[in-house]
Amino acid sequence: MASSGAYDKTVVNTVQRYGKERASYDYKTIHQIIDSTPVLHVSFNPAATTSDPFPAILPMIGCTGSFASPSADPAAGPLDLYIHGYVSSRLMKSPSTHPSGTPVAVAATLLDGLVLALTPNHHSCNFRSAIAFGYAVLVTEEKEKLYAMQLITDNMLPTRWANSRIPPTKAEMTSTSVLRVSISHASAKVRAGGPGEDRADLKDEELRKRVWTGVVPAWIQWGEPIPAEGNRVNEMPEYVEGWRNGENRDGRVGAYEAAMEK
Amino acid sequence: MASSGAYDKTVVNTVQRYGKERASYDYKTIHQIIDSTPVLHVSFNPAATTSDPFPAILPMIGCTGSFASPSADPAAGPLDLYIHGYVSSRLMKSPSTHPSGTPVAVAATLLDGLVLALTPNHHSCNFRSAIAFGYAVLVTEEKEKLYAMQLITDNMLPTRWANSRIPPTKAEMTSTSVLRVSISHASAKVRAGGPGEDRADLKDEELRKRVWTGVVPAWIQWGEPIPAEGNRVNEMPEYVEGWRNGENRDGRVGAYEAAMEK
Repeated sequence: MASSGAYDKTVVNTVQRYGKERASYDYKTIHQIIDSTPVLHVSFNPAATTSDPFPAILPMIGCTGSFASPSADPAAGPLDLYIHGYVSSRLMKSPSTHPSGTPVAVAATLLDGLVLALTPNHHSCNFRSAIAFGYAVLVTEEKEKLYAMQLITDNMLPTRWANSRIPPTKAEMTSTSVLRVSISHASAKVRAGGPGEDRADLKDEELRKRVWTGVVPAWIQWGEPIPAEGNRVNEMPEYVEGWRNGENRDGRVGAYEAAMEK
Repeated sequence: MASSGAYDKTVVNTVQRYGKERASYDYKTIHQIIDSTPVLHVSFNPAATTSDPFPAILPMIGCTGSFASPSADPAAGPLDLYIHGYVSSRLMKSPSTHPSGTPVAVAATLLDGLVLALTPNHHSCNFRSAIAFGYAVLVTEEKEKLYAMQLITDNMLPTRWANSRIPPTKAEMTSTSVLRVSISHASAKVRAGGPGEDRADLKDEELRKRVWTGVVPAWIQWGEPIPAEGNRVNEMPEYVEGWRNGENRDGRVGAYEAAMEK
């Protein structure tokens, strides 16, 4: 465990490409990227029931938290990662299951823009990404499961938990699986700014007059909600509209700030 | 190899959760999802230089294609997946490297919306996702590398290759790595429509008058481009603006169609 502010840099999580300029290991950056990413990708080695040599990868929903210390500052120390969704038996019967759980790698990636340079080789993307490594275990204790279910629901849409039918029924509690990954290693990588260019290209005025260069900013846009057939609430609740408009504004502003970063 | 229209369903790629309703193995669906996803996630087992038990996962850029048959119909047969980006030595020195290459799993996920039900347990996301499995090898033949570089550039932004400084220099060709993954297994999973509900909840009129249900559609929005400091082209090229407006329109329309699907 790092002594302060950041995950330890080890052979597992050290960023190998542009590590100096773009990598970060600090708790806050990593936890924020994970919590801002609507869909995470979870990778693990499935049960060796066949000669199948492939790792598995699943899109799943989750966020960081601490059941022991729910109001923990995300900048102050390592957190757990709670993942909700169908927990395949392949995941929990992984052959590489360690006494501490199943080793998993979780990726969170946010695209901030497409970076267009004079030559295709200098094209790039602005992005924020985090990779967390740890051991996944099924949450079995009811209080912790409930904590994680609310955490994940409210991380997606703040206050939705309290604004829906709770608590879950006994059957719902049983049918829902939640995984806790104790993050042992993690890293973040952030790319922002305009294109880098080849020196020779920059001296070629004819080329520069012909090829547009810059950034096309990108973000997740949340559109006007579509009521379900069975919906009986005529007016959109403020906690939905406030969240949606805030996300759209923050997404747009963040993508433009990334594009204009020097 | 499947005889027609679809990847074979095997233990590697069979969708285990909601497979009947949501899974698809057909070439066209899978190739389209991969080619529409700006950032792919590539998972593999890194070199066993330590006692590290974790799979690796990297965000990378890529798309499907066929060097042998460049105009192949994506619905007609399996394709290769070309991936561009930094190829870590960890990937190419994987201990599980097979005579055919390094076994990788590649995920492509597109979020189409947030699905809000009466109770948190029935919350869901609308999404399109594809997972492809195959053996990754470094492309060494210059003509194939050039084919893949143009394919990936134009898949992101059509005609950008011809509208930038090409061909790459000798140094650029050497410094750029491209991986080819021959897709051996693949599957897609698509969720669309409004929320499913618990029967008891639907009978609870008080609850239904209190909790808004429906879908918040989501898509990737491409904003007004920001010229680079060194840009000398005053007017935005039509191939950039046409692409951007088309993507925004298709993203929005697709997310609304998914939200309203019965």
